[in-house]
Amino acid sequence: MAITGVLRPGHAQLRVLDLDESVHFYTNVLGLKETGRDKAGRVYFKCWDERDHNSFIIRKSDKAGLDCFSFKVQNKKVLDQYESDLKNYGVVTEKIPAGEMLETGERIRFKIPTGHTIEIYSEKTSVGNGLSDFNPEAWVPDLKGIAPLRMDHALIYGGDIDGARKLFEEVFGFVLVERVKMEDGKTDLATWLTCSNKAHDIAMVRHSEDDKLHHVSFLLESWEQVLRAADIMTMNRVPIDIGPTRHGVTRGTTIYFFDPSGNRLETFCGGYQWYPDMNPITWTWDEVGRGIFYHDRKLNEAFLSVIT
Amino acid sequence: MAITGVLRPGHAQLRVLDLDESVHFYTNVLGLKETGRDKAGRVYFKCWDERDHNSFIIRKSDKAGLDCFSFKVQNKKVLDQYESDLKNYGVVTEKIPAGEMLETGERIRFKIPTGHTIEIYSEKTSVGNGLSDFNPEAWVPDLKGIAPLRMDHALIYGGDIDGARKLFEEVFGFVLVERVKMEDGKTDLATWLTCSNKAHDIAMVRHSEDDKLHHVSFLLESWEQVLRAADIMTMNRVPIDIGPTRHGVTRGTTIYFFDPSGNRLETFCGGYQWYPDMNPITWTWDEVGRGIFYHDRKLNEAFLSVIT
Amino acid sequence: MAITGVLRPGHAQLRVLDLDESVHFYTNVLGLKETGRDKAGRVYFKCWDERDHNSFIIRKSDKAGLDCFSFKVQNKKVLDQYESDLKNYGVVTEKIPAGEMLETGERIRFKIPTGHTIEIYSEKTSVGNGLSDFNPEAWVPDLKGIAPLRMDHALIYGGDIDGARKLFEEVFGFVLVERVKMEDGKTDLATWLTCSNKAHDIAMVRHSEDDKLHHVSFLLESWEQVLRAADIMTMNRVPIDIGPTRHGVTRGTTIYFFDPSGNRLETFCGGYQWYPDMNPITWTWDEVGRGIFYHDRKLNEAFLSVIT
Amino acid sequence: MAITGVLRPGHAQLRVLDLDESVHFYTNVLGLKETGRDKAGRVYFKCWDERDHNSFIIRKSDKAGLDCFSFKVQNKKVLDQYESDLKNYGVVTEKIPAGEMLETGERIRFKIPTGHTIEIYSEKTSVGNGLSDFNPEAWVPDLKGIAPLRMDHALIYGGDIDGARKLFEEVFGFVLVERVKMEDGKTDLATWLTCSNKAHDIAMVRHSEDDKLHHVSFLLESWEQVLRAADIMTMNRVPIDIGPTRHGVTRGTTIYFFDPSGNRLETFCGGYQWYPDMNPITWTWDEVGRGIFYHDRKLNEAFLSVIT
Repeated sequence: MAITGVLRPGHAQLRVLDLDESVHFYTNVLGLKETGRDKAGRVYFKCWDERDHNSFIIRKSDKAGLDCFSFKVQNKKVLDQYESDLKNYGVVTEKIPAGEMLETGERIRFKIPTGHTIEIYSEKTSVGNGLSDFNPEAWVPDLKGIAPLRMDHALIYGGDIDGARKLFEEVFGFVLVERVKMEDGKTDLATWLTCSNKAHDIAMVRHSEDDKLHHVSFLLESWEQVLRAADIMTMNRVPIDIGPTRHGVTRGTTIYFFDPSGNRLETFCGGYQWYPDMNPITWTWDEVGRGIFYHDRKLNEAFLSVIT
Repeated sequence: MAITGVLRPGHAQLRVLDLDESVHFYTNVLGLKETGRDKAGRVYFKCWDERDHNSFIIRKSDKAGLDCFSFKVQNKKVLDQYESDLKNYGVVTEKIPAGEMLETGERIRFKIPTGHTIEIYSEKTSVGNGLSDFNPEAWVPDLKGIAPLRMDHALIYGGDIDGARKLFEEVFGFVLVERVKMEDGKTDLATWLTCSNKAHDIAMVRHSEDDKLHHVSFLLESWEQVLRAADIMTMNRVPIDIGPTRHGVTRGTTIYFFDPSGNRLETFCGGYQWYPDMNPITWTWDEVGRGIFYHDRKLNEAFLSVIT
Repeated sequence: MAITGVLRPGHAQLRVLDLDESVHFYTNVLGLKETGRDKAGRVYFKCWDERDHNSFIIRKSDKAGLDCFSFKVQNKKVLDQYESDLKNYGVVTEKIPAGEMLETGERIRFKIPTGHTIEIYSEKTSVGNGLSDFNPEAWVPDLKGIAPLRMDHALIYGGDIDGARKLFEEVFGFVLVERVKMEDGKTDLATWLTCSNKAHDIAMVRHSEDDKLHHVSFLLESWEQVLRAADIMTMNRVPIDIGPTRHGVTRGTTIYFFDPSGNRLETFCGGYQWYPDMNPITWTWDEVGRGIFYHDRKLNEAFLSVIT
Repeated sequence: MAITGVLRPGHAQLRVLDLDESVHFYTNVLGLKETGRDKAGRVYFKCWDERDHNSFIIRKSDKAGLDCFSFKVQNKKVLDQYESDLKNYGVVTEKIPAGEMLETGERIRFKIPTGHTIEIYSEKTSVGNGLSDFNPEAWVPDLKGIAPLRMDHALIYGGDIDGARKLFEEVFGFVLVERVKMEDGKTDLATWLTCSNKAHDIAMVRHSEDDKLHHVSFLLESWEQVLRAADIMTMNRVPIDIGPTRHGVTRGTTIYFFDPSGNRLETFCGGYQWYPDMNPITWTWDEVGRGIFYHDRKLNEAFLSVIT
């Protein structure tokens, strides 16, 4: 089979400071669809074109940030194999029983060397994308807000991004697509990894503090939708970090913006189709600005410092 | 590894009636880059964003049509395994030595039940996409003509599309993404298969005659590029079959048009991201028009009859 | 003053066969805003970005078609002058008192040589476009349906298009922007006239029967909005005549489609900025197909025959 | 006639520090077409879709900035009338004979209260836009660089913008479209004026120093072309001031960038159709940021300080 193992980023869980304000934001501004709430206080969302019950979860906390980032794998057999592989790799795993999260099967939870909590799972109830499997229309009308197609990827900050990359590569078969080198020309400042044809499924930046989130990204369909997203952000006075602009890395177009708790989000569009026979792309330290923000050609102050 | 086995459609070889006229067309109108010619009279092309030496080959003949459609596989070991799997499946294979095609390794050639010649190979020289692997720009300026990103897929016509699908599924792990049913509600009129995250890598329509080509498709980046492509076709008096429009199947936007020999080509954009946990989509006979041409909602006369 | 006399197409009034079905269509599919109904049974609409109370009116009849097409002029003084100029030109005028149409001042009604009823007026109540005159947002969110910006122009069919053009030129200062010649190379088959910087404000095709409507056109903002419009038409099973495509004439992008009564409408985007120092563009008979439908390069059967 | 008096911004003349470098920039990066050079050392350019011989002129100087901004008027009679009107208004005028600029008729030169030199003229040789007046194609292929459609407008900085506005309104019939108020709520910080259906043909910002240029603007056709322009700027390391983004004022999309001499230019797209019956839009001091840069919602440092 051509697509095996890890299928895609499955769900991200974020901490927010005010649940009602956040639900309003994620529902009406970002335009996700709320699909449920559980006794633990978690609110579940999905993007319109996703089939699975949820891809984004928030819970109230006194500190913003990322609880965990989770990948859906091919099937239960693959899940069990990965659990075993993780153990053999020396990673401590925790089994979270099916049903602990709404409409979600058993999850294997573990920490990667950057301190982030990652989960894998193989089952999440399909609730459909609002279009029939028979003679569907091209899209769902009357969506609210920005209405991204999918939760696309995350960019995480932590210390040992080499170790984290090695784990994703060796256990899960992720591949390095692009990287930014530090001033020494050797050390990676940042790496972008894929488990699919996409230019990235997860990315990491080296940082003094572990377990930090730079952003969770949502997929838009066109550059015009990126403009529309920026307009909607302004209409709702959502703080925009930067954009609309293009990344040099992945070539994708982008807006970085913040949820009401200060968690950075991204609306992302494009990026090339990646194949395993492509060479990784390397950005040198003196060109990191253009690599991250292709038009401004310099990092803004927030890029390396504002994280949750 | 998450991407395994067959990577993608690698090259298509077409027969053309007049070589010079065709080279002009493919170079200046479609905007491919000629990368070489061989003693057998074949002319090799690549799309700008492809790295491999060639993805599209033409040769002079007195009859237009498709010589073969070829897929690149992960590596030589996988190639050998597929050769063995094909034999075990009962398929006669032929080994074409490395170098028979320019800059291309050993190919395994075989026929599928629709009569088409398919090849697999694992090696083709990377000549790059014109952008550096270090600090690249976002695209290559001053391209000619329509300038698609990649050769994307083919739609072939033949009798036993059930057998052909079975072979792609069982030997190569392709997956059915969409299908159109005939009037009886049971027989497939058409099927779309993927070996990646794309909505299709090859498609087939049931037809009375074997080994026929409906179109080879080239990838564009945006709906605005589709308009630009149609404009360029008109400026060059290229016959347009239909479009710009949208397909219901895959949701992609499209133009069907003809090369000077009457081979149908497509410029295609979009289409959803496919994952193995998605259900196949089924179009019923009464909705086939909307499935193929989402706006016209009826097949044009040429769709089922004009093939090469 | 740089903009004087006739400002723009002000309102079009169409006959429809079923009022409720039509109100549903114009409100939810085309996405106009209903602004009122009067005792005569007329239903009034405006496009979202128009300020005046109405730009499109329908009334029930047993026969579809155009009641009248009306232009807004600069002010009452100009209106009176035009009334006098029309009389001097030999045109019979009728004064329709203010208030006969909702929120609309006095109108001067007259027939042009193609048999169409044209009106001019200088007053219509401004109800705003939903954006403040102070610190406005960029657009109004949560619009329904296709949601064009403005009613843009009409294309009318009738016998004496030379006489009609002469009247628009000599009385109102319209200017010929493009024309299509008939087979004889002399007679105009069609003419496009402007009273502004737009590539056309009214157009005419020579036809055996007088007082016929080819289409009323509505302005969209981008080619992506044209695609979205076509998608919405399909979702609502609105008959599409042709498109999305481009016109050679004006270079604008377009969809022709029909309201439930068979009145043809257009969603139009683009077209160049016109200035009085530009030469008129002439299309010869052998290129009329490309002139009208730039990609298909031939008239479809409906273009010359299906009118209301 | 519906369009009278002043037709449009006709040409802008800028001072540059290095002529060769500037010619390279304007030709290959901005993508203007060089149409001539004269004995005075001036280099003339036009945008591809303009018909007149030139719309943008540069000359070498040791100080960057705007020599003059000129408007084309309807005809010689109108030109003479305006000359007389200017004198009656108390403005000193200078007559520049036909031929002093290449392919340009007599110009009337005068200073407006902000200290800027403005010219009007009625004749400039039409050299065409590269498309025939008979059966034209939709656009010209193989253009270089950004390739804007037209020179669109200028934003000038000076002291007495009230006086300058009054002159444009009272002599030339320009109309106020949008304005930004200063902190006192009374004084205009900036005004946008039109002489057409466009949202602006000239704009002014109140500034301590007279005769300063903020930017000359060039028209692009779509938001995708704005992205392409920003990409080309980066590929050529052109300093970008801000963008791609949207203006609140006019709603247009924009990039501000600098020529090699530090003159700010703009690529502009969109903006609403303006009509004389629309109210002017007012931006208050606290919302000026959103008015100028709709997404960032604050002025960048350069907006009020970096001028030439």
